[in-house]
Amino acid sequence: MGDSIKQLAVLGSTGSIGQQTLDIVRALPHRFRIVGLAAGKNSELLAKQIEEFKPRFVYCSPADDQDREILTRLTNHDYELLSLEDIASHPQVDTVVMATSGKSGLSPTLAAIKASKQIALANKEVLVMAGEIITHQAELNATQILPVDSEHSAIWQCLKGESEKAARLILTASGGPFHHYSSTQLEEVTIEQALKHPSWQMGRKVTIDSATLMNKGLEVIEAHWLFNIPFDNIQVLIHPQSIIHSMVEFIDGSIKAQLSYPDMRFSIQYALSYPERLPNPQLSKLDWSRINNLTFAEPDLDTFPCLKLAIEAGRNGGTYPAVLCSADEVAVELFLSQRIKFVDIASLIEQALEKHQTIAHPTLEEIVAADAWAREKVLKLANGDTQC
Amino acid sequence: MGDSIKQLAVLGSTGSIGQQTLDIVRALPHRFRIVGLAAGKNSELLAKQIEEFKPRFVYCSPADDQDREILTRLTNHDYELLSLEDIASHPQVDTVVMATSGKSGLSPTLAAIKASKQIALANKEVLVMAGEIITHQAELNATQILPVDSEHSAIWQCLKGESEKAARLILTASGGPFHHYSSTQLEEVTIEQALKHPSWQMGRKVTIDSATLMNKGLEVIEAHWLFNIPFDNIQVLIHPQSIIHSMVEFIDGSIKAQLSYPDMRFSIQYALSYPERLPNPQLSKLDWSRINNLTFAEPDLDTFPCLKLAIEAGRNGGTYPAVLCSADEVAVELFLSQRIKFVDIASLIEQALEKHQTIAHPTLEEIVAADAWAREKVLKLANGDTQC
Repeated sequence: MGDSIKQLAVLGSTGSIGQQTLDIVRALPHRFRIVGLAAGKNSELLAKQIEEFKPRFVYCSPADDQDREILTRLTNHDYELLSLEDIASHPQVDTVVMATSGKSGLSPTLAAIKASKQIALANKEVLVMAGEIITHQAELNATQILPVDSEHSAIWQCLKGESEKAARLILTASGGPFHHYSSTQLEEVTIEQALKHPSWQMGRKVTIDSATLMNKGLEVIEAHWLFNIPFDNIQVLIHPQSIIHSMVEFIDGSIKAQLSYPDMRFSIQYALSYPERLPNPQLSKLDWSRINNLTFAEPDLDTFPCLKLAIEAGRNGGTYPAVLCSADEVAVELFLSQRIKFVDIASLIEQALEKHQTIAHPTLEEIVAADAWAREKVLKLANGDTQC
Repeated sequence: MGDSIKQLAVLGSTGSIGQQTLDIVRALPHRFRIVGLAAGKNSELLAKQIEEFKPRFVYCSPADDQDREILTRLTNHDYELLSLEDIASHPQVDTVVMATSGKSGLSPTLAAIKASKQIALANKEVLVMAGEIITHQAELNATQILPVDSEHSAIWQCLKGESEKAARLILTASGGPFHHYSSTQLEEVTIEQALKHPSWQMGRKVTIDSATLMNKGLEVIEAHWLFNIPFDNIQVLIHPQSIIHSMVEFIDGSIKAQLSYPDMRFSIQYALSYPERLPNPQLSKLDWSRINNLTFAEPDLDTFPCLKLAIEAGRNGGTYPAVLCSADEVAVELFLSQRIKFVDIASLIEQALEKHQTIAHPTLEEIVAADAWAREKVLKLANGDTQC
């Protein structure tokens, strides 16, 4: 791209990754321009973002009249209201930042793939739920899917320039706020404790997923699809300082790792600037005079069953990973609204997976149906309907 | 090279790196063949190596009749006795492994460069003493100098595929057996203590250099030339476990690191197989269930002045680095023969550097003269001749 300006569409611009993406654009306005913004909620913030970045295309959740009212107040700016799919595939967009959460990312990601856009993918569920379809379509359309998750960005950076595939991926995990907790201690943890992540600042859903280790499980499935690597060759390693973001072991036994402070803007910026790297004074460089110690431990799969459930769902494939994702989404919502305990999250997901009749090589419709089935199932199970 | 067999000449085959290079060839005989062997001492071992690898060209130190006698006993094998330079530049050689020590590597390295051989460089002194000449000649002849030192191999691996230069190199150092020692404690250390390296198995000279941190200083100068990076952008970091072999920081603040157990065969093999990586079951892969803790500390330049002396000599350039190397070589020999104390090593080198009249952009002859001057100077200083 030389020094040209990359035109970005940020889908999910009011979420944590969306906001940090805009931070990068603020810091590097000579390299990036926002042409599309989309948000399903928080229209107040979306309106502010529109004022600041003056995008040409906007999506906001059409069901909400108040949202529209907030946005129509913005009379200063001309923008076109488009669907997520139309923004993601618009000729004026170079790179689509997929920062929506959950299955809402599926259809716009496919639209971007078919329009051969570069996709900076922050939405884990897209690859977890529909990895086979997405990677197949990306191959057909020669579309690059660039990871935004710090772990996958680390792996991608370590693989850069290597001609051989990875022999093993080592995904690091902070371990969350309950690393070293026993199963009994986990019985009593509160929402406030679960939301207090020791190293990363993230959205609420992913923070709870970090506490259950489900987040790492989803990342294992994501890594399987992104890097076309068998589950047996993906290892999870607890690393509480979150300085090493992941590692790749090659066939000669040599390992490469990528490091930085835990700040999502590093990996967001790399996905945007790829294949270049750009200086950004807002990102702090590691100060080794203050880093004395990096520690590592193997994950405890008995105490944190979500990681095991995710890896099994990934191995079993079919519609299991979609059920895993959707069941987890509902279970985390139930926990955050104080309707279930922290340990019930894993148990609800496990029950949903056990009851699910999987479909091999599912279509997008079958994935969406499995999602709906799982949501209903978890709600029923949470209401004590064990015969459902 | 595809799956073709690379023809290797190993100069310094009886030393630690030489022997480990032959280990790699033993493990991967379908990829590497020894066509040249050279050793300045230990003719018994050289004779065994000739029996095993059946090289076409051999060099042995011509001054020693006993050596010749040992070698002429090998009547079973046809080999030609050649000079180091003739082996290094022979048309049948693809890659020259420069595993000699000290300034004896200078002339054969230049011969290999002029013959456009791939050079796997283990001899630090070549770049430290004559970095300007060597890198200039390598550029003129489009010769690749591939590092064998684990630190430089790590940096080289981390730079692979990156289009931008490094913003900062972070060279790790084990700290040697006397990490945490005070200056007073260092006064009393014995040869046996100094030779007991906590993580690496190496030759005697480099083991002492590790204990004084001179080894790291030489590596800083080597890195400066190999990667064309200013001294200000090279940081030394003590990392006693010797698992992270070095790191590169890029302009975006992202760091890449290379890791393995401390075993020189990893980096030797990578230099031989480059740009490929080859599986070698003899090299143990990192077992993360046994690595709990990686620690880091800044080097103590007051207690270990050799590191500071080396970096200063590198910055000042000219013939200073040659004097540093040669003064160190003599001082370490004096220590190993119990003629001086451990702490005298740094003090003798410092005095030699202070008394030296440097020559900017020296010729090879001027470098050789500076070497001779420094050797004589250190011997005189050690004999108490402070007016020399």
